[in-house]
Amino acid sequence: MSGNSFGLLYCVTSFGESHGPAYGGVVDGCPPGLELSNQDLQKELDRRKPGSSRHVTQRRESDAVEILSGVYEGRTTGTAIGFLIRNEDQRSKDYAALADKFRPGHADYTYWQKYAIRDARGGGRASARETVVRVAAGAIAKKWLRSRYGVEIRGCLAELGPIRIPFRSWQAVGGNPFFSPNEDLVKKLETFMDELRESGDSCGARVNVVAEGVPVGWGEPVYGRLDADIAWAMMSINAVKGVEIGAGFAAIAQKGSEHGDEMTPEGFVSNNNGGVLGGISTGQDIAVSIALKPTSSIRLPRRTINTRGEPVLVETAGRHDPCVGIRATPIAEAMLACVLMDHALRHRAQCGDVQAPTKVVKTSKIN
Amino acid sequence: MSGNSFGLLYCVTSFGESHGPAYGGVVDGCPPGLELSNQDLQKELDRRKPGSSRHVTQRRESDAVEILSGVYEGRTTGTAIGFLIRNEDQRSKDYAALADKFRPGHADYTYWQKYAIRDARGGGRASARETVVRVAAGAIAKKWLRSRYGVEIRGCLAELGPIRIPFRSWQAVGGNPFFSPNEDLVKKLETFMDELRESGDSCGARVNVVAEGVPVGWGEPVYGRLDADIAWAMMSINAVKGVEIGAGFAAIAQKGSEHGDEMTPEGFVSNNNGGVLGGISTGQDIAVSIALKPTSSIRLPRRTINTRGEPVLVETAGRHDPCVGIRATPIAEAMLACVLMDHALRHRAQCGDVQAPTKVVKTSKIN
Amino acid sequence: MSGNSFGLLYCVTSFGESHGPAYGGVVDGCPPGLELSNQDLQKELDRRKPGSSRHVTQRRESDAVEILSGVYEGRTTGTAIGFLIRNEDQRSKDYAALADKFRPGHADYTYWQKYAIRDARGGGRASARETVVRVAAGAIAKKWLRSRYGVEIRGCLAELGPIRIPFRSWQAVGGNPFFSPNEDLVKKLETFMDELRESGDSCGARVNVVAEGVPVGWGEPVYGRLDADIAWAMMSINAVKGVEIGAGFAAIAQKGSEHGDEMTPEGFVSNNNGGVLGGISTGQDIAVSIALKPTSSIRLPRRTINTRGEPVLVETAGRHDPCVGIRATPIAEAMLACVLMDHALRHRAQCGDVQAPTKVVKTSKIN
Amino acid sequence: MSGNSFGLLYCVTSFGESHGPAYGGVVDGCPPGLELSNQDLQKELDRRKPGSSRHVTQRRESDAVEILSGVYEGRTTGTAIGFLIRNEDQRSKDYAALADKFRPGHADYTYWQKYAIRDARGGGRASARETVVRVAAGAIAKKWLRSRYGVEIRGCLAELGPIRIPFRSWQAVGGNPFFSPNEDLVKKLETFMDELRESGDSCGARVNVVAEGVPVGWGEPVYGRLDADIAWAMMSINAVKGVEIGAGFAAIAQKGSEHGDEMTPEGFVSNNNGGVLGGISTGQDIAVSIALKPTSSIRLPRRTINTRGEPVLVETAGRHDPCVGIRATPIAEAMLACVLMDHALRHRAQCGDVQAPTKVVKTSKIN
Repeated sequence: MSGNSFGLLYCVTSFGESHGPAYGGVVDGCPPGLELSNQDLQKELDRRKPGSSRHVTQRRESDAVEILSGVYEGRTTGTAIGFLIRNEDQRSKDYAALADKFRPGHADYTYWQKYAIRDARGGGRASARETVVRVAAGAIAKKWLRSRYGVEIRGCLAELGPIRIPFRSWQAVGGNPFFSPNEDLVKKLETFMDELRESGDSCGARVNVVAEGVPVGWGEPVYGRLDADIAWAMMSINAVKGVEIGAGFAAIAQKGSEHGDEMTPEGFVSNNNGGVLGGISTGQDIAVSIALKPTSSIRLPRRTINTRGEPVLVETAGRHDPCVGIRATPIAEAMLACVLMDHALRHRAQCGDVQAPTKVVKTSKIN
Repeated sequence: MSGNSFGLLYCVTSFGESHGPAYGGVVDGCPPGLELSNQDLQKELDRRKPGSSRHVTQRRESDAVEILSGVYEGRTTGTAIGFLIRNEDQRSKDYAALADKFRPGHADYTYWQKYAIRDARGGGRASARETVVRVAAGAIAKKWLRSRYGVEIRGCLAELGPIRIPFRSWQAVGGNPFFSPNEDLVKKLETFMDELRESGDSCGARVNVVAEGVPVGWGEPVYGRLDADIAWAMMSINAVKGVEIGAGFAAIAQKGSEHGDEMTPEGFVSNNNGGVLGGISTGQDIAVSIALKPTSSIRLPRRTINTRGEPVLVETAGRHDPCVGIRATPIAEAMLACVLMDHALRHRAQCGDVQAPTKVVKTSKIN
Repeated sequence: MSGNSFGLLYCVTSFGESHGPAYGGVVDGCPPGLELSNQDLQKELDRRKPGSSRHVTQRRESDAVEILSGVYEGRTTGTAIGFLIRNEDQRSKDYAALADKFRPGHADYTYWQKYAIRDARGGGRASARETVVRVAAGAIAKKWLRSRYGVEIRGCLAELGPIRIPFRSWQAVGGNPFFSPNEDLVKKLETFMDELRESGDSCGARVNVVAEGVPVGWGEPVYGRLDADIAWAMMSINAVKGVEIGAGFAAIAQKGSEHGDEMTPEGFVSNNNGGVLGGISTGQDIAVSIALKPTSSIRLPRRTINTRGEPVLVETAGRHDPCVGIRATPIAEAMLACVLMDHALRHRAQCGDVQAPTKVVKTSKIN
Repeated sequence: MSGNSFGLLYCVTSFGESHGPAYGGVVDGCPPGLELSNQDLQKELDRRKPGSSRHVTQRRESDAVEILSGVYEGRTTGTAIGFLIRNEDQRSKDYAALADKFRPGHADYTYWQKYAIRDARGGGRASARETVVRVAAGAIAKKWLRSRYGVEIRGCLAELGPIRIPFRSWQAVGGNPFFSPNEDLVKKLETFMDELRESGDSCGARVNVVAEGVPVGWGEPVYGRLDADIAWAMMSINAVKGVEIGAGFAAIAQKGSEHGDEMTPEGFVSNNNGGVLGGISTGQDIAVSIALKPTSSIRLPRRTINTRGEPVLVETAGRHDPCVGIRATPIAEAMLACVLMDHALRHRAQCGDVQAPTKVVKTSKIN
C-alpha cells in the first residue's frame, strides 16, 4: 500500500493539493448499515475550518463535503465511500515569490529533492489543508465507534507556547476558538496570540486526546500494537514532533511501584499506561498527548537557499496559522478514531468468538 | 498483513514465546548480493543479550542465531531470509504462582481478555525477549544501509530514572553495561542500580538514537511519512511510552523563528526537526528519543485481581531487568534501521530516476 | 488494505456506483515527472465507452474524466493522482422492478446476503461500469511503461460465443467495434450479435492480451509472482471465469519436451510459458487469455426468488451489453498494465543495483 | 508486504530452499482456542510427501514438521504460529552440472537475471518443495474452517496428460497414488506413467478442487473478490498455467439463458458460476480447476544457453516428478483453504453484525 493510504481494514486514501481543484478521499471497509450523511462529515470539518477566528489563517473555505458513493438511502452499503471537498479560495500568486526558495522548517526542500518537481502554491501536497481528508474519514469512524461501542473521542489544547492550560471540563472546549478546556484562560490565550501575530512569529502547542469507552482487547501484538499505531497516526499529522501515551516521558522518572497500574475488583486504580498494556487496550481511557511545532511560515526574514543553491532571505506573506496547534484538536481526534476503528474491526476478525473471560473489572477514568 | 509482520518492502515477520522452544523470524525483501553470515546477526544480538552484567536479568541465553535460508555462498540471494534462535534457559516453574494473576503494568490482563488463553510462562508472547527478532532483522538492515549508503545508526542511554546522562562520545557507549555515552557517570549509574535492585523496585529510562548519513528524500507523504513510521517503530518496542523526533516536546515552547532550521549553501544551521521535514528525510541526522517505563515485574507486593476477578496481592519472583531501558539501545537502533531500509527501497522504487536537483547543500551534524 | 484498493507500490483505489453521482479513483505511487493530462486517460476511456455501437449498451455516457491532483504543469508530481468521472445517464426507474428480485448469474443475491442493504439501481457497486476506474488507472500505467521501458500492451477479441477469431493483425483491432484482430470476420460478428440481441439472450467471449517489451526480471517469487498477480487482476474483472497464461490449459496434454521453451543465443525458441518462468518475467511477450461469461441481465424470463424467498420470474429491461466481452479488451489491457507497473517498481526497489548478468539472450515474439 | 507473504488477515510467510537446512513458515492471524498439534499439519504434509510411490520423485524426506510457537497446552493462542521442516535428503552434487545452465521451462534463467546470484541446487527457492509451507498453513486453515463453519475442501486429479478422469467419488481419491477419484482408471494411469518415466519425458495435468459448506457472503468486491484471490492463489502454485472457476472457459460458448444459475426457494438450480457471484460466495460449492504444465526437468536433451550466453545441451539427472500435477492436489486444497479463511475473517470484521436477510435459500451441490 503506497504512501497515501492507511489502515488495514478501515482504510483511508487521500488526494489533493492546497491550490489544486479539490481534496478528496476514499474510506474503505466501513461496515454496512451505518446512518451517514454529508452533515455527519460537515460538522467535524467545520470544527477545523480556517477563517473561524482571527487567531487562525484567514483563508476562506466553506470546506463543503460531498459524499459520492457508498451510501444508499441514508445508510452505508459496505462499499467504498468516496468524498470530495472543492478548494475555493486559492490565492496562488501569494506564492510566486516562494517558488524557488525553501522556507526553513517547511517541506519545500525535501519535496524538491525527492521528486524534482514541486507544486509550491500554498505548500502543495505538504499543506496542512490535507487534514480535511483525515477529519472527514475520522467523522465516519467516530460515528461508528459511538453507535456500536459507545466510544467517545475528545481532544483539547493543553499548552499554547509557554502557557499551560490545566484541564477543567470537556464542556468548555467547544466554547472558544482555542479548544481550551478552561474558560478562565481564554483571555490570556487571546492576548498571547494577538501579540504573537503582531510580532510576525509563530509558536508551538500541546494537544491531548482521550478515547473513553474503548473495550478491553483491541490491538494486535507484537507489531500491530494499538499504541504503536496511535503513535504512527499522531506523528503523521503535520507539525507533530512528539507523542506520549499515558504517563509518557514522565515514566522515565517513575518507579515500577508507582507506574504499574494496580487493579481491584472495582477496576484499575490509576492509568499511567494510558489505556494500553502490551499493545492491547485495557478498557481504560486511551490517553494521548502530542507536541506540535511552531508554524514554519512566518513573516520574519529568515536565511535559506534557493533552487540554485544560492543564499537568500525568505519572508512568508501568505495566509497562515500563527499556531497550527490550535486547529489540531479535531485532526488528532480524527486520527485516533480511524486507528481505533481499524483495530475494532481487526479484533472482531480474529477474536469474534472469544468471550472476555474475566467480567468483573470495571474501568476507572483517566487520572 | 497481520500483527506480527511490519514493513512494506523490507518486511519482518516474527514468532516465538519466552518459554517456548524458539524465537524466529523472516526478513523478506533484502536486495541480493549483500555479504551476510550468522556472525553479522550474532554480534548485534550479543549487545542485547541477557546476563551480561548484574544490572540486567540473570537469565542465561546464548541467543545463538542460525540463518536457515536466503543466503548462498555468503551472500543474500534476494529470497526470504529465515532465522532461528532457540530458547535455552526457561524456568517455567517460576511462573506457576502468576498463572492466574495479572501483574500490574504488564500485558497479563489484556492478553487474557483478548484471547481467553494465555501462555503465562515468562510473559509468553508479551515478553521483551521477542526483541531478539527485531535485533536480528535490524542487523541486516544496518549492514545494507552502511554498505550501500554509508548510513550509521547508533544509540545510547540518555536518562536512567532520575539521572540525566549528558552526551560525551559514541566511543564511550560500548565500554560500559549501560550504553552510557559518558564514562564519568558509570559509577553513579552502578550505585543507583544496585540500590534499586536491592529495593525490589524498578525504574524508567530515556534512550536516544541517531542515524547519520541518511540521504535527502526518504519518506512517502502524507501517510507513509518517515517520521510517522519511526514513531510507530519506537512505540512498538515493549515498555516505550513516548517518542520524540528532533526538538520533540521542547518545540511547544519554541518560536517559529527559533525552531525552523535555517539553510545556507553550507547546509542546515540547526536540526530542530530531527532530520525530517514534511515526512521526508532532509539529509541531516535523524534524531529520535524515547521514554521507557519502569519494568512491571517487581518484587514489591502489589494489588491486583486474579482470573476469577478476586482481589489478590502479587510479587514477581522471576528473573527480570530492573530497568528494561538499559538493554533497549540496540533494540531501538534495530527498529530505526528497519524503517530506514524500508524507505530506502520505497524511495528507489518510485524515484529511482530522479536526480536530486539542488546539489550544493551539505548537511550539518545534529545539534 | 481493504477490498477497493490493489497494488503494493502502484496502488489503485476505486469508488462509485452505477447510478450514484460519480465514479472516481486514486492512483498512488506513480513516479514523478511523467507528462500526463486528462486526454491521456480520456482516450483509453473512450475505447470502453458505452453507446459506441449498436452491439453494446445504449447508455449514453461521455465518461469525461477530470484529474484532481498529483499533476502540476502537465507532469506528475509523485503525489496521489485523484480523478473523477461523473455519471450522466442514469435511468434508475428501469430498476424499480428488480429492487427485490435476484437476477440469476448476477451479484444481486450475494450483495444482499453479505451487506443486508443493496443499491439495486443498475447493479450498484457490482456494475461493470466500475471498470472506468481501472481503465483510467491503466492509462497512466501504460504511458509510464511505454515511456520508461518501451512496453506495449495490446488486446483483442479471440472468441465471440461460438465464433473463433484467428489473429490477423493489431492494426485491425481499432477499426471495428468488436476489437476483432481480423477484419474478414467483422460482418459475421455483426450478424451474430444482431441475432443474439433480437433473441433477448447474451453470450460469452474470449479476450487475449499481450505485453511486449517487458524486461526480464519482474515478479517476486514465491507469492508475489507476476503470473499469480496477473491471474488475480484478470479474475477481478466482472464476468471473468477463467485465466490462462501462455499455453494455459493446453499445457495439460503437452509433453515436457514440447512445452519447455528452449533457448539459443538468439533468444527463446517458443513461448509456451507466456513470458513468465518461476513467477518472473522472461523478457518474452507476456501472453494472457481470459474467458468472460455471458451477460447475466437478459430479456428472457428466468426463475429466481425475491428478498422474501418467494419464487418469482425476472426479465431484465434495462440497457445492457449482450456480450460484456466486447468492451473487455481495454479493461484487460488496463489491468495488465497496472500489475506490470507495480512489479516494475517493486523490482527496481529490491534489485535496482543488479546488472542482469547474461546479456546475449534476445527475446522472440509470442508464438 | 513483500513477495514471500500472502493474506490480509490469515497471513502466511514462507522461507527455505530445496537444498538449504530447512523450510519454515509463519501463520499469523489464526483465532485463539483452536486445538492444534504437529499431527494436524503432518497428516496433510504426508499427502504431498515425495517418495510415496514410484510415480513421483524418489527424494526421501520425512517432512517432519515442528510447531515452534503460537500453541499452548494444545490450543492456538492467537499469536504467530511458527513451524519448521528440516531438509534431510539433499543430493546437491546432482546439480553441479546444471549450475551454469538454464533448464528450458524452469526458473533458472529468470532468477539468474533478476538477482545475479542463484542457488542452483535442486531449484533453490524455485523448487516445488516450497509447497510444504503452503500445505502446513493450509492444514491449519482447513481445520479452523471445518470446526467453525463445517467447510470441507477436497481435490482430485481430473486429467493426466491425455487421459481424462471422470469424477466417481471422493472416497476413491485417498486410495491411490494419483488422487484419482476413479479407481477404474488407476491401472491405466500407472501404465501411462511407467511409459512416460521410461521415455525420460514428462506430462501436464488438471486438478479440480471443491469447497463445500462455504457460507454466502465471503469476498470483498471490487478488488478483494473471492474468485480473484482464488485465481491468484492457484496461479501462485508452481507449474500452474490456467485457472477456471465454475464453468470456466466453457462459459465462452454458453448463452446467458444457459449460464446464469436460476434460483428457487430450494436453492440454486445449477452452479455455472462455481460458487461465486460478484466476487462474493453464494453458499454453493466453490469449484476450481487448474492446469499444470509438464515438469521442466526431464532426462531428454534440450537446447539452451549457459551463463555466458553460449549454446549448450542440457539433460536433467536429478530426482524429479515426471508429472508435478500428481502431488498438486493437497497443495491446491491448501491454497484454497488459506484464501477462504482469510475471507472468513475479513467478512466477520466488516459484516460481523449483519444478519443474512433471506434465509430460505438452500444451496445445491456442484453440478
